[in-house]
Parts: sequence; C-alpha cells; structure tokens
Amino acid sequence: MAQLTNFTYEELTLGQTASYTKTVTEQDIQLFAVVSGDVNPVHLDSDYAATTPFNGPIAHGMLTGAVVSAAIALQLPGPGTVYLGQTLRFRLPVRPGDTLTVKLEVMELKDKRQQVELDCKVFNQDEKLVASGLANVMAPTQKLAIQAPSLPRFTPS
Amino acid sequence: MAQLTNFTYEELTLGQTASYTKTVTEQDIQLFAVVSGDVNPVHLDSDYAATTPFNGPIAHGMLTGAVVSAAIALQLPGPGTVYLGQTLRFRLPVRPGDTLTVKLEVMELKDKRQQVELDCKVFNQDEKLVASGLANVMAPTQKLAIQAPSLPRFTPS
Repeated sequence: MAQLTNFTYEELTLGQTASYTKTVTEQDIQLFAVVSGDVNPVHLDSDYAATTPFNGPIAHGMLTGAVVSAAIALQLPGPGTVYLGQTLRFRLPVRPGDTLTVKLEVMELKDKRQQVELDCKVFNQDEKLVASGLANVMAPTQKLAIQAPSLPRFTPS
Repeated sequence: MAQLTNFTYEELTLGQTASYTKTVTEQDIQLFAVVSGDVNPVHLDSDYAATTPFNGPIAHGMLTGAVVSAAIALQLPGPGTVYLGQTLRFRLPVRPGDTLTVKLEVMELKDKRQQVELDCKVFNQDEKLVASGLANVMAPTQKLAIQAPSLPRFTPS
C-alpha cells in the first residue's frame, strides 16, 4: 500500500508547488452521477450528448472539482488538511478519457489557524486550462505518514 | 423514467428558489474516493477516522460540492445549463448517513450570455448549514423536457 505524507504548516513555503494527475474514465462519470444524483444525459447518454453544443458526452464540471480536492488532500498540504473553501471557474469541457493534471501553488500563509491559500489550475493532456481557482485550507500541525487504504473497487451491476 | 425539465433564461425571476435533497451513504463516499482518487483514511477507514479530531469518518468536502452541482443541473435552471463557476465554503463536516438539502436562489440575472448568479446553501438533517457559496451559470435558451437516464448501478467487487 502507498504511504501518504503531508506538509505541516511550518514546513510550507510561499511558491511551493505540487501536481496530481488523474485520467477521467467513462466509469468515473457514471460513478459521479451516482454520488451526486446528477443523471443529466449530456454526461450519461452518448446519443443525446451528440445533439448538444458539446457534440458528445462531457464530465460533470464538479468532477474536476473532485480531482482538485484530491490534489490538496493527497499532495499539498496532504493528510490532516482541513478544507475550508474553494473557488472554481470551469473553462473548457472535460471528456471521457481526458487526463487532468492539477497544479497547486502556495500563494499565502496566514498565521491565523494555519490557514493557507493555494492557487489551483487544471490542465488537460493538450495543456489546455480546463479549470482554475483558489483553495483555502487549514494546514496540518502534525506530521503524518499513514498507509493509504486501497481504492475501493466497484463493478457495474 | 423520470422526466427532466428546465427553466430558460427568460423564465427565471429574481428570488426564484429550488431545493434538492440527497442522503450521503457510506458507498457514496467510497465511490467519490474512486472518482477523485482521494483515499485519505479519514473518509475510508473508521478506525483511523476515530483517532482524528472528527471522531469518525467524514465525507470528502467536495462531495457536498457534487450535490450542489446536481441541484443546479437537475432543478434550477436544470438541463441545458452551462456551469461557469462556483464558490464554496465548507462549514461543518458531513458524515455517512447525513441527508443534505441544497437550497438555491436566483440572486442576479445578467443579460450578457444569459448568465445567472445563484446563492447555494446546504443544510443537514438537523438544519445546520454545512456549506454555502455562489454559482455562476449560463442558463438554457431552449425549453427542454427529456427522459432522465436510469442511475447506473454498481456493486463492490
């Protein structure tokens, strides 16, 4: 199992960066529909989606938000971080099979409650900016090195 | 199958409201871990989570964001909406079994590109505010009444 480590507030520096990559599969889009309840056919029905201005199925916008949140939770600052807020601007559609890379950068270190502001940019495999925003988090005070649980596995039924 | 309908930009009025309710199950949290890749044990491992300041497992913060996005996509303005941006402030933890109700209200109608600003508040079953923010969307111009695809079904494997 992979080990998860973090950066404590004291270890963070202005301009520090991290990145996280995730390919968005067709199944991820179906799972996101289950989690959210959003069964809009522009995400789930290829034939319908082909008739829309998107010319084919697209991922739910907030699925990209989910990937941004994972970057923060796993990479910077990592486990023990408390997520306080997020802004997101959705710039380009994400399609099944797209590979997203989240780039994070520490923009501000506030001494109050170990709050940290992170710039978040999400690029696809063509290096196009698909989403951007700012995260506000409370960084961990305690250094952690914990075993990552295995990713749960699900099959369509 | 349920029918999905929408409000076109012309049909929206200032102060118009809608709500959407979703219970967050333990399986939803596992599915969100798969979609995002965020395997932090505070979400997936009850024993570990019991040792954290949360005293037990919590949902990923952005899972609440996913439920907000579903409210917009399904209810107000509904199908055909283009999601441009979202701000979220995470105020209280969400736990497996919590029932979230998203309340949306039209705050501003901008004539430019049919843009609409929506106030978003998320309450749990105890009527505590767990998250809040603003959404910026492009409302549909075309009236739609479409069949909702069935929710995909997945079983742990």
